[in-house]
This record gives sequence, C-alpha cells and structure tokens, in this order.
Amino acid sequence: MADKTIGFIGLGVMGQSMAGHLLAAGYTVRVFNRTKQKADALVEKGAVWCGSVADLAAASDIIITIVGYPADVEEVFMGPSGILENARPGALAIDMTTSDPALAIKLWQHGQQKSIGVLDAPVSGGDIGARNASLSIMAGGEPEDFQRALPVFKIMGANVVHQGKAGSGQHTKMANQIAIAAGMIAVCESISYAKHAGLDPETVLESIGKGAAASWSLNNLGPKMIRGDDAPGFFIRHFVKDMGIALSSARDMGMKTPGLDTAYALYKQMAEQGDGIKGTQALFHLFE
Amino acid sequence: MADKTIGFIGLGVMGQSMAGHLLAAGYTVRVFNRTKQKADALVEKGAVWCGSVADLAAASDIIITIVGYPADVEEVFMGPSGILENARPGALAIDMTTSDPALAIKLWQHGQQKSIGVLDAPVSGGDIGARNASLSIMAGGEPEDFQRALPVFKIMGANVVHQGKAGSGQHTKMANQIAIAAGMIAVCESISYAKHAGLDPETVLESIGKGAAASWSLNNLGPKMIRGDDAPGFFIRHFVKDMGIALSSARDMGMKTPGLDTAYALYKQMAEQGDGIKGTQALFHLFE
Repeated sequence: MADKTIGFIGLGVMGQSMAGHLLAAGYTVRVFNRTKQKADALVEKGAVWCGSVADLAAASDIIITIVGYPADVEEVFMGPSGILENARPGALAIDMTTSDPALAIKLWQHGQQKSIGVLDAPVSGGDIGARNASLSIMAGGEPEDFQRALPVFKIMGANVVHQGKAGSGQHTKMANQIAIAAGMIAVCESISYAKHAGLDPETVLESIGKGAAASWSLNNLGPKMIRGDDAPGFFIRHFVKDMGIALSSARDMGMKTPGLDTAYALYKQMAEQGDGIKGTQALFHLFE
Repeated sequence: MADKTIGFIGLGVMGQSMAGHLLAAGYTVRVFNRTKQKADALVEKGAVWCGSVADLAAASDIIITIVGYPADVEEVFMGPSGILENARPGALAIDMTTSDPALAIKLWQHGQQKSIGVLDAPVSGGDIGARNASLSIMAGGEPEDFQRALPVFKIMGANVVHQGKAGSGQHTKMANQIAIAAGMIAVCESISYAKHAGLDPETVLESIGKGAAASWSLNNLGPKMIRGDDAPGFFIRHFVKDMGIALSSARDMGMKTPGLDTAYALYKQMAEQGDGIKGTQALFHLFE
C-alpha cells in the first residue's frame, strides 16, 4: 500500500468501527476526536492518538473525517488548525460525514489550491453497516483520487460507487435521504391504517411486505413501530439535519418537494419536542 | 375437491389469467364478462360461457368476481340478477376486486341472510403475478369460508393470508396502497433530485437501491422513470380509484394522512389531464 498512514477524525459509533477496520487491515491509523475518551479502545488496539487536527493532518497520507454537522466539517477542513492548512501537498482528504454538497465542492476547490485531493464520500448502512464493513459508500471527486481511495473504501464498505465530480457523493446521499423521507410517512400511514381498521398489523406485513409496497423501512422499521420500540438505529436529529441540507439544496435547484417538505416538518416538530434522540421510526407516534 | 364448479365473473387481464389457472387445475369453470369476446380464449380451453350473472351464480359452488369499481361489485352481488339473489344456499362468493371495505362487510351481511358465504380477497402482484400464479391474496371473512376457499386461492396465488373478519382483506389492500402512495412521491423526488444535481440517476440507484432507501418502487419503477417509460404495469386511474377508497375509509376512522392526501391530489391531477391509462411511474413527469 502506497498510502501507509491514515488519519481518522471523528470517533462516534460509525467512526470507531470504520477506523478499527483500517487498523485491522494493517494501516497505521492516527486518530483525533473532540472527546478523547472515545479513542481509548482504538489506541489500545494500536491506533496513535494525535493531540490536534493539525498534527494528525501533517503526519497522514490519507485523512478521513466523519464528524457531526457541515459546520464541523468546515472547521476541521478550513480552520487555521485544519486539514487543508496542515496536510502535506499530495495528501488525500476524504469527508465521510453526511454534509452539504456545496461545502464539498468548496473543500475540493480549496484542496486544489494546496495540491491536496479532496473526496466527499458519505455512507449509508448505519452502525451495523459500519461494524460489518458493509456500508454503501457514495463518492464524489476526481477519478484518480477515487482510485487512490478505493482500497481504503473497500475495507470499510461493500458497495462503493464513484458518483462523479466533487459534491456528487453528498448529492447521492441526499437522494438517498429524500427517498427515505416521504417513504417513512407512507409506512406510518399504512401501519396506522391497519391498526385503526382493527387488523393485526404484523399479519398485514405478511401480506404487503413482499410485493409492490415493500420497502426497507416497511420491513425493518414497521415491526418496531408496531412494538412501540423507539430505540435509535438512526437518530431523528440526524435525519432532520440531513433533510435540512437536502431541502436547501433542492430549493437552490428550483425543485418542488412536497413529500420531503412534509417529512421535514413532522420530524422537525418531533426534534423540537425533545424526541431527537429517538429512532426515525418514532415518527409513527404522530400517526397513532 | 368438494367444490367442483367455479363461476368466474370479470375477465380483464387479471381475471383471464386467474380463471385459466383454475381451469388448468381441473375445475369446471363457468365464465361471465360484460364484453363476451374476452371469454373466447378461456372458452376455447374448456370454460363454459354463461349468458348472465344469474345463470352463472345458480350453477356454481364457488363464485369469484374481479371487476372494476365498487359500484360494479355492488351491482354484481346485490342487483336483482346478482349473485346473492341467484346463488344456491351453501354457495361461497369471493370478491377479489380491490373495493370498499364497508361494501365488503355489507355483502357479507347480506350473504349471511341467504346462507351464502362471502369473502373479500383482493390481490396484489399485478398482471405478472396473475400470470405466474404468484399473487398475494389478502382475505377477510369467516375462518371456515377461508379454509374452504384456500385450495382455490393457492392455485392463483403464492402468498395467501387470512387477515380477519369480513372487510379485512380490503382493509389490508388499502394498507398496501397507502404504503405505496407517499412512497411514490419519495421515489420521484429522489430521482428528480439526482437529475437536477447533474448525477447519473442509474448510477445513483446502484448506491441507494440496496440500503435503507430501498423499495420495490425505487428499484422497479425508478428505472422506468429514468428512461421515460410510461407503459402501465399498474394504471394511474386504478390507483386513483384505490386511493380514493383508502382516503374515504381513513377519514371515516378519523385518521390524518398527509402523504396519502398529497399522492392522491397529484395522481388525480394526472388522471384529469388524460394520463389515467399511463403507469403509476408517470407521476415522475410532475417532478421533472
């Protein structure tokens, strides 16, 4: 491997699993996280703790970030102690946060000026996908940067696709979240209808879960809705963040999105009333 | 087989395949259809043409209907020349039309008075499911009537589920259509977003078609939307009919259905502007 050292910034549930796979594959992995404690398990397995983003960036061939919000991405990349000021020319920086496509393009442009390659490569598949290295990775950026990153992506994901130029990874993730958004309303309405009609909703899923009404949400989140299990696979507050980016991006492109609008309004209402840390299936409570 | 003669009313694309399977399985099949010509192929294979619903009903152990609208169902069952006036006591009548749950309950009640069993058993799976005998059949009515019908259902379908008392089959089909309705908006918005963002939407489907955004609609109708292929698998005008029944039923139960409302309004607009005979994927044109 030409790239021996990977810097990994952002050790949430996803990042810890992903960095762990890279370590297990034999890379030197340098890690940084705002809360140092979250690096402990990885450091025990051989990861190298870095005291700052600047230190990490300066010492890495490839730098991966998976942090919280676009503002965090911008700070980690563009701040004075950030990646683009401190990485070596020829380094490759990959943002795997679900973030703003316009910001991804800006980071790529600034990277160009510093001879630092930048890819946007958000993922889907959640904590289970990260743990099992079965993530879907949707990447945007230069073809040669994508080829360089591919061995690393393949260690973390099972479905790795180059979607096009800078920003395309984030746009693809937005298309993913948009396909989920109004679909969640459909699932809630369907199960709520079944309950209102006096049917056994689990038996209804036996009839409707395999045909034209089938969806990942219906078959995986539907049973949780029926059981009243709000435990998060994917947090409402994160979904609200993603839909907010998608809406803003869709408006910039002059699109009408009645389904996304409705889903965003309902989920935002839930987040504002304190349900942001519940799983997205908790939307069902609004339909009961 | 205790029931030897099956009367089959309604020889559209679905009904022709379904009656053909019963004939091939060795039943005596008596057929009636408003347009006689549609019975020709079945009569050639040995089906017996009946000049009226009354004649058919009087001569059949089991009577199956799959006609157009609830008004047609009501006429065929309740009219003076209809099934309930003319079938023998002990006969079993099964409506497989997608129809109104309240009407299904009414037919069952009237059947009780005549000692005629009545099941509501709408299907999903479309013309292909009918042809391959792989339909999902969702049935409502008395358990003993369901058991009696089961051998016949199994000849036509692959996923046969008794959902409960009279009306439960129709309610389950409504839950199916509701799960599709807002889901179609989600798919249109997602693919439209991908196109607006300058992505290749088929490549986007490679990334998003297998994970949390996956749905039958995304993976089967999405590619048709991308190609501009409006050929009907399921007619918009039939979907408008079904959603109209679902909406009316949901309102009777005091439910809020923002996703279904939006889908119904958009599809109704398409039907009114002459697109009723296009496939449901043609909704995409409103999002281009």
